[in-house]
Order: sequence, then structure tokens, then C-alpha cells
Amino acid sequence: MKIANQISMKEIAKLCDVSVATVSRVINNNGRFSEETRKKVLDTIEKYQYNTNTVAKALRMKKSNTIGIIVPDISNEFFSTIVHGVESFFFEKGFSTIICNTGKSKEKEKVYLKTLDSKMVDGLICISGQEEIEASLLSRNIPIVTMDRRPKMTNNLAIIESDHSQGGYLATKHLIEKGCKNIIILTKKNRLSPDIDRMEGYKEALTEYGIPFTLQSIVETTDHPKGNFEAAREAIRQELESGRTFDGVFATNDWIALGVVKALSDFGKKVPDDVKVVGFDDITIVKYIETPLTTIRHDVEKLAEVTSKLFYQLLTEKDVLIKQKHIKIPVELIARKTT
Amino acid sequence: MKIANQISMKEIAKLCDVSVATVSRVINNNGRFSEETRKKVLDTIEKYQYNTNTVAKALRMKKSNTIGIIVPDISNEFFSTIVHGVESFFFEKGFSTIICNTGKSKEKEKVYLKTLDSKMVDGLICISGQEEIEASLLSRNIPIVTMDRRPKMTNNLAIIESDHSQGGYLATKHLIEKGCKNIIILTKKNRLSPDIDRMEGYKEALTEYGIPFTLQSIVETTDHPKGNFEAAREAIRQELESGRTFDGVFATNDWIALGVVKALSDFGKKVPDDVKVVGFDDITIVKYIETPLTTIRHDVEKLAEVTSKLFYQLLTEKDVLIKQKHIKIPVELIARKTT
Repeated sequence: MKIANQISMKEIAKLCDVSVATVSRVINNNGRFSEETRKKVLDTIEKYQYNTNTVAKALRMKKSNTIGIIVPDISNEFFSTIVHGVESFFFEKGFSTIICNTGKSKEKEKVYLKTLDSKMVDGLICISGQEEIEASLLSRNIPIVTMDRRPKMTNNLAIIESDHSQGGYLATKHLIEKGCKNIIILTKKNRLSPDIDRMEGYKEALTEYGIPFTLQSIVETTDHPKGNFEAAREAIRQELESGRTFDGVFATNDWIALGVVKALSDFGKKVPDDVKVVGFDDITIVKYIETPLTTIRHDVEKLAEVTSKLFYQLLTEKDVLIKQKHIKIPVELIARKTT
Repeated sequence: MKIANQISMKEIAKLCDVSVATVSRVINNNGRFSEETRKKVLDTIEKYQYNTNTVAKALRMKKSNTIGIIVPDISNEFFSTIVHGVESFFFEKGFSTIICNTGKSKEKEKVYLKTLDSKMVDGLICISGQEEIEASLLSRNIPIVTMDRRPKMTNNLAIIESDHSQGGYLATKHLIEKGCKNIIILTKKNRLSPDIDRMEGYKEALTEYGIPFTLQSIVETTDHPKGNFEAAREAIRQELESGRTFDGVFATNDWIALGVVKALSDFGKKVPDDVKVVGFDDITIVKYIETPLTTIRHDVEKLAEVTSKLFYQLLTEKDVLIKQKHIKIPVELIARKTT
């Protein structure tokens, strides 16, 4: 038994135990055949390299009608809302969505990239997580759309995210207009691109209003086993104990902001009278707490919609060639009781 | 070219372009070989029916090292915490987890069952959603573990869930011991098994304390576009407007309980002085609100752990035969400020 380099449609039909007409239908992607038949025929074609490899490859490219989403933490409502929106969009279009949760682990991200590739997804959406995507792990050249991360790949890639820098700007401007003269920014020590952009917006607003920005303006939280809330509470406790004074805090996410409010209350400081606080993300909880939080709201529906539409275009229109498309979706300030 | 019914290891090796030793290693699942080689060899064996079908099938059964999870709503923190726990457990064991989100749609559930089956998952975890699982959609006989649903399949199945009836009992007993004489249960009109069990526990506690249970004790929320919170608020509003009096509410989930608290406050009723309220689930938000909620807490870590361990056993020990295993994990009352 020898592996033929080229075989006829008749031979393929024989090998697959289907009619020649069926093989033809699969090759031309035209008419009725089961997914099983399609797979069998395409596998056989690829194995025996019918015609040229390109044919089998091109046919294969349209094959699975499945997309993959890599997400760092599905328990984060921002991510889960986006995933839900994308999944619904693609279900309507006849695509199944399979999700992998990396728990922010680089190792898991690698494994799941390979897993999704081996499950023959037609494309990938990578939400946040590592800035890099090890596209070399993928066996096929499939389109990738990322959110809130900026990998340095050059092809098949679109980046979509909230306008984080606009958010930082709006938050800081709001504090200034509410009378704050001494505004610190509280942010994570290990910053990903969204955090960096939020800080850029903060600087921009200070500059616009002639308020000096110094390194002392930045207060960093260090990782805390109990998360951002306790980390922020601890950081502000230290600032207050050191005698530091400030009248405004821009916290780069809502859990940090809630920790700030808690720390201020621990020290008998009144929010918003003594210190005003703005968060970022508008998570559900912040409007139910005792002093509802002023924060920056993402346009989550828009993010999901723009991502879905662009990704769908990449999946279905073969000639769409994008080098790197970078789309920023505007955010909005929601003024509540902490300012 | 003819399809052979049986071919030798040598022929398989030739077809796969690997050595006979490699084929042997794959067949005996022993020693080193890449996933690609394994797939190639197994595919070839199956195609040419090496030895008996059973061998290829048995080999194939262990093949993908991927499990599938079907979840109705990943933005629900109870589900996402379970999924996270299961994913982490299986990652440690060398399994990838792929997740499909059905948005509680029966149609989507069917499609995703087929999708996960076609992705060759080794087994399925189905969390909540439809009570039935259309196992006939699956092409292979793979183990299934369900949480919070009770399909009527007889094989390959385990059911794991919180002890919802114990929770309903604890909630109601707590209200009685806090002095409530007239306790209503507020629950959804369309009840799945967890809701039904929670109500059973409520009845059991009433009976134990000699309090009559009547159909009037049950108040049902009707679907509200803004969700359980507004649905519950509306239901309680109607009860209060109709002149109904009560001094305790057992709400069958936390969002319903929060809606109850809001409706009572709309009518100037004091919680817990005029009316005491107990929820169910202990979602994050309930401890941060103005009057932190008394509620029933699931042992989420235990649920994830028991599910993972049992499922792993089903996946790896071929001789585990379970008819239907039904495991209930105890819950706990968390007393806060609404009682």
C-alpha cells in the first residue's frame, strides 16, 4: 500500500464510501451533505493532496462554523457581558462559540490557544490577559480580534477596546470641576495597556487645567490575597497614616475605588465632603452601595457589537485585508454620590 | 484503490509516515508521541478498522483530553465560580475545558450539545438550564455530570447540587425563630427543581413549627424585562397595595430578596423591624448594600470539588458504573441585618 500523491474524485469517493456526486458537492461547497461526510471527504483530500493543497486548505478554512473566545476571567461581569453579546450575535449567524477561561495564567493561555486551534475554530477573539498572543502556536492562519490588549502581530488582527484614556480624562476633569486641587491616581503596580491609558487621560486633564503632575501623584496598590478592594484600602491607609493629604482620588477600577471609600471611612473622612472619589468600569455593585460611586461606564453593548461585526467580516469576506485595525469605543462618566 | 478491511501495523505506519514502533506506542498508549501523531494513527486505524472496531473506539475514548461545560449564564457568579473551579481542577490533570453558554435557550442548548460532541469532548458537565438533556443528540456515549437539574437519563450520569431543600428549611426556621408568624415565600412562576426544593424546605419548617401552609403563602413573580429585582418589587407592591400583611419573606433567590427590601422601603416598611427577609445564594453584592442581607450560602468550593472529582473518575476509570448518583451538598445560613 502506497500513499498516492494525487488521486481522482472517484478514488476519494471510494475511500469515503460516498458517491462521486457527493465528493463534487463537498468540493464545490454546494448542495446538501452532512458535516460528517464533509469532514471525511476533506480529510481524505488533504491526506492524499487532491489537486493542490490550497484547495483543501481553502475548503477547510470555511469548515467548522465555530469561533473561540479566550477570556481571562469569566466571573468578571465586563468580560461575561461581552462574551454573551458576541455569542448571541454569532449564534444568529449559525456559528457556535466555545469559550476558554485562562484565569490570567500565561501557561493556560498557551494551552487554550492550541486547544481551540485543534478544535478547528474559524477564528479567535482574545479578551485581555497577556499583551502578547503566541500566534506561532496556531497551526492555521486564522483571524484574531483582541480586546483590551495590544499584541504585536501584523496580520489578521483587529484591536477593539474602550477609550480608556478618554475615561481617565473625564474622571479627572470631573474631580477638578468639582473643586479638587490635589488629586491622586490609585492604580495597580502591574499595569496592562488599559491602566496605562487611563493614567494618560489623568495626566492630560491635569495638564489642561495647569495642575502639576508628579510621580507622587501616583499611588500604587500591591497584590493582595483578598483582591483589589483590600489592596486599595491598605494603600490609602498607608498614605493617610503618613500624613498625606488629598481631596480627590481617581481609582483606575471600581473595586479599587470601593477600597478607597472604605479606607477613608475607616479614618473618619467624609466622601464626598472631604475627599471625592471616581472609579472606572461601572460594575453592578457600585450603584447599590450606601454611597453610590461616580465612575466611568463602558459601552459594553457597542463593544460587543463592533467586535462581532468586524470579526464576522474577517471570517466571511476572504478579501478583507487588515494590517492592524485599532478601534476605540467612547466611554461615559456616570456622576453619583462620591463626587 | 480499494478499502482494506484489515491492515497491518506496518501498513498503518506507512500510511501515517511514522515508524512501526510509534504505531505500537500509540496503540498501547505508552511512551512518547505527539498529539498529532496520535490523531493520525488513530484516524487511520479507525478508517481501516484495524483489528476490531473496539480497539480504535476504546483508544478514541481517551483521546481528546478535553471536557465540555454547558452553562446557562456565565455572567451569573454562582455558575462562573463553579466553572472556574472545575476548569482549574482539570487543567492540573492535563485536560482543557471548553465552555458553551446557552443563555437559557433550549435551542442553543441543543446546538451546543452537538457542537461539543463534534469537538470530541471526553465528557460533559451540564449546569442548570433545561431539566432534560437530549442525549440522543450525542454521537458517543460519554459521561455526563449535571448540576441543579435532573434529567431522566439512566446511564453515565451523576447529579450534584446544593441541598436546596435544607436551605429553604434553614431560611424559614430562622424567620420563625426571629419571631415571624406570617411568612410568605416569594418565588418565580416558572420553577426549576432548585426552586421547587427550596419551597419544600419552607413547607417542612412551617409544618415542624405548626404553622399552616396554604396556597396563599406562595407569592409568585412574573417575568419582568428588568429581571428578578424589579419582578419581586412589583409583586410585593401588589401584595401591599391589596392590604396583605406579613412579617417575614423567604425569597428564593437574592435578587428577589433585594427587590423585596426595595418594595418594603418604597412603602415605608422597616426591615427587619416590620418585616424580616431571607434570600438565597449569597451573591457578592448582598453584603455591601445598606442593609446587608440574611441569606443561604452555597458551598461553591465543595460543589466544584465534588463535581470535578466524580467527573474525573467517570472519565478515567472505565469500570465505574453508576446508574444515577445524586449528591447533595449542605448549605449554610448567613445571618445579617435583614432578620
